[in-house]
Amino acid sequence: MAPFGKHPRTIVHDGQPFNAEPPLGLLRRSFITPGEVFFSRNHGSVPEVDPDGYRLAVGGLVERPLSLSMEDLCGGFPKSEVVAVVECAGNRREGMMEVAPIPGETPWGAGAVGNARWAGVPLREVLALAGVGDGARHAAFVGLDEVEGEDGSFPYGGSVPLEKALGPEVLLAYEMNGELLPREHGFPLRVMAPGYYGARSVKWLSGIELRETPSENHFQASEYKLFPPNATEETADLSEGLMLGEMQVNAAVCEPGEDEESSAGPVSVRGYALAGGGRRVERVDVSQDGGETWTQADLGEGAEEPWAWTFWEATIDLGPGEHRVVVRAVDSSAATQPKAAAEVWNFKGYANNSWHGVRVVVR
Amino acid sequence: MAPFGKHPRTIVHDGQPFNAEPPLGLLRRSFITPGEVFFSRNHGSVPEVDPDGYRLAVGGLVERPLSLSMEDLCGGFPKSEVVAVVECAGNRREGMMEVAPIPGETPWGAGAVGNARWAGVPLREVLALAGVGDGARHAAFVGLDEVEGEDGSFPYGGSVPLEKALGPEVLLAYEMNGELLPREHGFPLRVMAPGYYGARSVKWLSGIELRETPSENHFQASEYKLFPPNATEETADLSEGLMLGEMQVNAAVCEPGEDEESSAGPVSVRGYALAGGGRRVERVDVSQDGGETWTQADLGEGAEEPWAWTFWEATIDLGPGEHRVVVRAVDSSAATQPKAAAEVWNFKGYANNSWHGVRVVVR
Repeated sequence: MAPFGKHPRTIVHDGQPFNAEPPLGLLRRSFITPGEVFFSRNHGSVPEVDPDGYRLAVGGLVERPLSLSMEDLCGGFPKSEVVAVVECAGNRREGMMEVAPIPGETPWGAGAVGNARWAGVPLREVLALAGVGDGARHAAFVGLDEVEGEDGSFPYGGSVPLEKALGPEVLLAYEMNGELLPREHGFPLRVMAPGYYGARSVKWLSGIELRETPSENHFQASEYKLFPPNATEETADLSEGLMLGEMQVNAAVCEPGEDEESSAGPVSVRGYALAGGGRRVERVDVSQDGGETWTQADLGEGAEEPWAWTFWEATIDLGPGEHRVVVRAVDSSAATQPKAAAEVWNFKGYANNSWHGVRVVVR
Repeated sequence: MAPFGKHPRTIVHDGQPFNAEPPLGLLRRSFITPGEVFFSRNHGSVPEVDPDGYRLAVGGLVERPLSLSMEDLCGGFPKSEVVAVVECAGNRREGMMEVAPIPGETPWGAGAVGNARWAGVPLREVLALAGVGDGARHAAFVGLDEVEGEDGSFPYGGSVPLEKALGPEVLLAYEMNGELLPREHGFPLRVMAPGYYGARSVKWLSGIELRETPSENHFQASEYKLFPPNATEETADLSEGLMLGEMQVNAAVCEPGEDEESSAGPVSVRGYALAGGGRRVERVDVSQDGGETWTQADLGEGAEEPWAWTFWEATIDLGPGEHRVVVRAVDSSAATQPKAAAEVWNFKGYANNSWHGVRVVVR
């Protein structure tokens, strides 16, 4: 049995911290990803939080510091809903590891992504009650988990620019898919910052601090940063690098699976595509010859929604032999995906949005 | 002599309509591109407009239609300034033409781009006076030029989403680099929509119409659209395709020039980089071996400005032989450029932001 009630077919990368993803065929079954299928990305413990004793502290550059109970949050503010895709910045790291080694990092396939219906309080409603103070430029979040560090344990944290924090789509979520958050997804309260990599959607939220600068938490200041291709773990200055925020346009073939055998004739190809920053998936191109020629997939659920992923499907006609079936998406700002992981390789293995493909064998 | 007072070294692609770009060494001389160096992109005539008789009509889904003289515009509204880069959607089409023919389109090099100080009335001030009406979603612009069409001549036009039109950076510009607009750049009034491809910054502006849908002008409805790689002039449905808006992250090597000879030792490499949609240029990577290994360029003027281009410079050490010096940029959303033009090829030759490079020969 996989822990935390996960689906039995879950691919568990680590037990502690718990990191797991679903196989792609399972992921593609449902536009709304069930909690038991949704990937798990943890950096430390999965805390068990007593909702009755829970308090959210709102402070820093605010006019009125707040301490809010779950009752305050659920009863005192409007409830808002968003269907949002969450992608781990390390999604598809496996593809980068084929270019050059990335030691010490989880070899995520293309399943470190999920799409759920989140409900909760718009963060901006809470910030309006607290009053945004002069000089505030970032909203920093901190969790209740415990991450093992060199000098003892510390909680996970991260931040988003204030401009993002004030967007109507950013929630302090207490529900996932119509139910209270599963413990492993941040019960009783988590940030949901749609359009951003999941790293900023802090789980088991204990505090919000408005600041002039981004969070100084390890995971904002030194991790989840995009370093140049020539930087290495030894040479990189961790205080530099680009703090990751908006997701890059990305797509994956979920069905057929890698190395799957098929009979000759029409084959249905299905997958997901996503865009960051409120951009939509505009077009999905599918190739059956590794990118020499292309056809357009039909866009299904999610194509009209800015924060959700988009399901796509195409029928291709395959003759006997081996085929490399490849996908790439174009977003509403006309941004598209690079061909090879080598083009975007970085020593942390983040943000691999190169063309995704599978080998299909027709006997 | 080049027409319209252009620099004598201007590369003239067409005389009528007048289309010309500067050589890259000349373009890289000044962070603010002088009017005589700035590229020229025209689809029809270059009208000579009498500023005294000029009127701007503001209509469509507005509460109060307006007719404004230049005196109204210069005297009745605040004056605002923005340093903004303007890139033609066809910039670097030449590189796409090396992949496959693109008949009938101008073979722009990497010089169809310029960066100027624009001044004028914020468009949103004019729209506030007119009053944005119910259902308005797009601001459509039309010019005073005459484009030859199959059924006689018509003016150039285009539109931007209302959300963009209301941004403080979007101007009805009457000055370029501290002087009245040159005739060829839209005198007496043009749109300046920073962060968008130049196609939407309509020159010799005669009218603004707020609409529910994008402009039906030929150049919005059927041109300046991104079509899939498998579409051709014969097969494409011109009513489909993605209407181009925000510029893609892009960069070019301006010095040394293509096939330039150099002596062995340290060589200074210089160029420009740009990002669209208000994103900044975050990093510029330079390679002297065609992209096998990289180093980071120093970012110069413009790096902190969201709407301007960024000048960059790197020193590389070249030994005897032929070298392929390549550049690529990363923007503040972590988007970067694809390696090869083939990855983004489309039959109209738009938005080529693949890695740019030059061959340098060391004797």
